[in-house]
Amino acid sequence: MNPKKFYGKLEPEKVILWGFLMLIMSGTLLLWISNYSYKPLTFIDSLFTATSAVCVTGLVVVDTASDLTFYSKSIVAVLIQLGGLGVMTAFTFLFILRGARVSLQQRYYLSNSLGLESVSGVIRLLGHIVKMTLAIELFGTLLLFGKLIDYYEPLSALGHATFQSVSAFCNAGFSTFPGNMMPFSKDIYLTSVIMILIVLGGIGFVPLTEIVGVEKRGKRLSPYCKMVLIMTVMLIVLGCIFLFLSEHCRSNQQISVFQGFWDALFQSVSARTAGFNTVDIGKVSPLGSFILILLMIVGASPGSTGGGMKTTTLGVLLLSLYSEILQREDVVFFGRRVPYSVLRKAVSLAIVYVMTIFLSSFIMGFMEPYSFREILFEVTSALGTVGLSTGITPKLSTGSKLLLILLMFWGRVGLIIFFYGIARKEEKGRVTYADVNVPIG
Amino acid sequence: MNPKKFYGKLEPEKVILWGFLMLIMSGTLLLWISNYSYKPLTFIDSLFTATSAVCVTGLVVVDTASDLTFYSKSIVAVLIQLGGLGVMTAFTFLFILRGARVSLQQRYYLSNSLGLESVSGVIRLLGHIVKMTLAIELFGTLLLFGKLIDYYEPLSALGHATFQSVSAFCNAGFSTFPGNMMPFSKDIYLTSVIMILIVLGGIGFVPLTEIVGVEKRGKRLSPYCKMVLIMTVMLIVLGCIFLFLSEHCRSNQQISVFQGFWDALFQSVSARTAGFNTVDIGKVSPLGSFILILLMIVGASPGSTGGGMKTTTLGVLLLSLYSEILQREDVVFFGRRVPYSVLRKAVSLAIVYVMTIFLSSFIMGFMEPYSFREILFEVTSALGTVGLSTGITPKLSTGSKLLLILLMFWGRVGLIIFFYGIARKEEKGRVTYADVNVPIG
Ligand SMILES: [K+]
Ligand SMILES: [K+]
Repeated sequence: MNPKKFYGKLEPEKVILWGFLMLIMSGTLLLWISNYSYKPLTFIDSLFTATSAVCVTGLVVVDTASDLTFYSKSIVAVLIQLGGLGVMTAFTFLFILRGARVSLQQRYYLSNSLGLESVSGVIRLLGHIVKMTLAIELFGTLLLFGKLIDYYEPLSALGHATFQSVSAFCNAGFSTFPGNMMPFSKDIYLTSVIMILIVLGGIGFVPLTEIVGVEKRGKRLSPYCKMVLIMTVMLIVLGCIFLFLSEHCRSNQQISVFQGFWDALFQSVSARTAGFNTVDIGKVSPLGSFILILLMIVGASPGSTGGGMKTTTLGVLLLSLYSEILQREDVVFFGRRVPYSVLRKAVSLAIVYVMTIFLSSFIMGFMEPYSFREILFEVTSALGTVGLSTGITPKLSTGSKLLLILLMFWGRVGLIIFFYGIARKEEKGRVTYADVNVPIG
Repeated sequence: MNPKKFYGKLEPEKVILWGFLMLIMSGTLLLWISNYSYKPLTFIDSLFTATSAVCVTGLVVVDTASDLTFYSKSIVAVLIQLGGLGVMTAFTFLFILRGARVSLQQRYYLSNSLGLESVSGVIRLLGHIVKMTLAIELFGTLLLFGKLIDYYEPLSALGHATFQSVSAFCNAGFSTFPGNMMPFSKDIYLTSVIMILIVLGGIGFVPLTEIVGVEKRGKRLSPYCKMVLIMTVMLIVLGCIFLFLSEHCRSNQQISVFQGFWDALFQSVSARTAGFNTVDIGKVSPLGSFILILLMIVGASPGSTGGGMKTTTLGVLLLSLYSEILQREDVVFFGRRVPYSVLRKAVSLAIVYVMTIFLSSFIMGFMEPYSFREILFEVTSALGTVGLSTGITPKLSTGSKLLLILLMFWGRVGLIIFFYGIARKEEKGRVTYADVNVPIG
């Protein structure tokens, strides 16, 4: 059966949209009930927490460690897990089936190797994703448990380890520790495990399976996979350098150079969508906040548990600049040409992204008394589903909370559907146009 | 004679680069001498003022109204005039001769109609530009003089009118009034004339002659000209609305609604590169500063006396988004296709622009005690050759002043040469590449 026809009937965009909405609604209700006898949540706070969990954001209006019951925490963990899996699955389906218009070959390679043209194939892909996720999370739990046992009772340590492992791989940023990861900022082992889980979750399902597959088959990595790896390393390194300079060299010289570097590295890894913090974000310098905002805007890689504008978007834009400087006719990446349509998609996404941030900050600026920097930080964090905050989230008005809920949903589910889901109109009898010359600069 | 050969020998990039450098050097020396017996300028302040004048920026380290002698003011006016003419001429030459690779037809149309393949043709083009500039400035001077006579002695009024007219059309933002245009913020007539001069100067020589030519020949406007007009109107209107909302509705309700609207309109027109101000920029709200920064980044149109990333750059990027949303195969504008190379140039310029702002702000943040917002504002203003400031310019360290000097030069002369001047390598035996599919978003 033709996969296009098959999924045309299924209408995956609607399935994805309603799936996420239903997950959020159920989560809202369950959280409200499970916390009712302990510290009752308002409806908006339940909705906010459920959205934040399903959209793997990590912005909190109630303290996860102290305000939620054990059941509520478990519900949050399950919502994170389902949300993270949902995001990876949804993107992978849409990428393979709809997005890959420019590369039919690659699409059929992927869809055939996974057998997506039948229901069993769909279930098999889901199975692949679930298995990989659970394997990594289990491994992460064991690694974390081995150290957390020094700090907590065994059962409590297991609970913490599981929650943190799921939250880190899903780039959710929720933490059951009071003050997020701040109590463990000096624990090199724990922070390292968390960072590795964040990076693995942020690379995306397709490159992750490719990297594993390469070792098996001895094949070469695809250009897409190479780009994801290069951008990930580059962003972590640059983010770390700039944060080290702004936070350690300029502001805070009371801590050791190594600790300053380590904090910068952790925040660089975490800011691009995970949202854990080992330092108090409210005390970061204005220069540091600006760097964090830029990292939050870029975000993780496509088809991952991370949000943001995506590493590949920035990669394509930078590549375009590189070819322009070299005066190349084509934008070339590892012997492959980046087509017009891909550059255009990158440009469009970047503009939509920046415009959303601007308009939302503007609207929120009218509703809140906080500084523009705090508001910009909050909006960027919600849209990039990062979850870092200067601390104003719980104090926001209902209107602003609603705005953040919409931003989280749009940043997580909306953008995927918007840029991959909207069915392309068939081009009938393509018109050709004369080129126009517009001076730039 | 083949124009390419003719200009290949002339090497216009070097002529432009050295021309601007020599103009700045002479200006520095002359200003230093002419002000020596009154209030001696330091070398760096002379250099800063000369660069600011030649690059038609308007950032000031000394008060134009009170710290400069009559001769110094005249030198500034001449530098502005030569700088403004130089920028228009330089861009127009490069655009016609080098930039228009994608549209040979248009290039030959322009170069032939102006007869640029001979020395007399070059002089004729220069003549066109000079005549148009002087005509508009003379007209502006008369209009301003008619009102300024109410406030000043006739001779003094004439001096003020001439200076302001030149400064406004050249988008220089220098003013001989204490506090720039603030004393006349309520004078609808004077502010209107200034706004019209700013807009005419910011549209660019090619569209300006085209608009005049259309009336004569009854021809239709070119797509490039249409884009410039649409973007100019759109930016002025949107900037005005957002500034009105942020400044009048949110912050300052002591003044009348009309005055609030008028101030917003003036700052919207002025922020995109002119740099005049009728309100105290240091007292603008953080939200308003952010809007001004965005307007300063966009700037005026190519080949105009204005700087910034340019309206056409934003236009092409927005057009690209529009076509993506409509799922069109091509990026189409008034029946013409925007080619890959133009989109790529727009993307490259935008990235270079944003990266320059980020890195410069970062460096300046290390040298100065001022808030990040003030520094970002200063850097954006210098790079966009706007000249608005929160008031910190005179108090900056020598290092920061040097940085701003470099930014003004790069924003004015560098970017034009960088994006139009670098001789394109001839493509020998073009290699074709397979397309790569990179997921975006
Ligand atoms: K997150
Ligand atoms: K200016």
